[in-house]
Amino acid sequence: MPVQIESLIRAIPDFPIPGILFRDITPLLADPAGFRSTIDLFVEKYRSAQIDAVVGIEARGYMLGAPVAHQLGAGFVPVRKPGKLPGEKFSEEYALEYGTNTLEVHADAVGRGHRVLVVDDLLATGGTINATLRLLEKLGADVVGVAVLIELVALGGRAAVNGTELTSFIHY
Amino acid sequence: MPVQIESLIRAIPDFPIPGILFRDITPLLADPAGFRSTIDLFVEKYRSAQIDAVVGIEARGYMLGAPVAHQLGAGFVPVRKPGKLPGEKFSEEYALEYGTNTLEVHADAVGRGHRVLVVDDLLATGGTINATLRLLEKLGADVVGVAVLIELVALGGRAAVNGTELTSFIHY
Repeated sequence: MPVQIESLIRAIPDFPIPGILFRDITPLLADPAGFRSTIDLFVEKYRSAQIDAVVGIEARGYMLGAPVAHQLGAGFVPVRKPGKLPGEKFSEEYALEYGTNTLEVHADAVGRGHRVLVVDDLLATGGTINATLRLLEKLGADVVGVAVLIELVALGGRAAVNGTELTSFIHY
Repeated sequence: MPVQIESLIRAIPDFPIPGILFRDITPLLADPAGFRSTIDLFVEKYRSAQIDAVVGIEARGYMLGAPVAHQLGAGFVPVRKPGKLPGEKFSEEYALEYGTNTLEVHADAVGRGHRVLVVDDLLATGGTINATLRLLEKLGADVVGVAVLIELVALGGRAAVNGTELTSFIHY
């Protein structure tokens, strides 16, 4: 782990709600060397994994997932919030502290048996990643791994990945 | 223009509302060769422009802007919808058919005089790009250009770019 990466992630208290310490990766993304080193972490890990598509989760997952896809020579597939995708699609709900949210993916986004890597910035309780894995199961994708930059270990999100290989580079 | 790129953009009628023909780039992004060729268009155009940061507009702008930033050796700066950025920030409104929307950027996202390229998927009426340019003016950035994959020429969004160099690769 290049030390530089951690030093460029800032902790902002009480965002988005009181009591939450938000890990803000925007200073890391804005730093050319930091951004490059971050993408390299993912690319070095999966360079030989024959990934057909990288799936990014809206919206910070796109900032990491799209360059990782490009560097791996893979396609990029967005998992989106409701109402954004225009074609035929699948939906999955996940629980929030109060109520539920929904994620969607195009029904033709990934071919059956295609090798897929899921990329997001952060694993907290794992709700969005779990919903994404259920979407990819509906598509018949072969999920090779889930890779996040940051894992908030105490929140136990690793259990939501259900046995899929999980890689995280920074742990709080 | 590689013919392949245009053939991978699908037109979906009546999305998001009746009467709109939506240009869906998700099949292009999902195709490894199409995705690579698309990013190459931007990178070849700005390779020698000494870009410090690529600014992407939420959310499809991230899917193109982040890999372009990475390939140019630049940082990546997201312009976001309200409530997503945790730090000190600037906001700008833009008009919709009914009402207004807001875009935000961190106040420290780009240094004064830094050379910036704005990337988005599509230029329609230009409201989001105009708001983004106003945000970047507040930051004191030197906007080298605005680059979009698709320009819907009849909607006249080019006027909203206010004399900043505009590059578009596909025209409808």
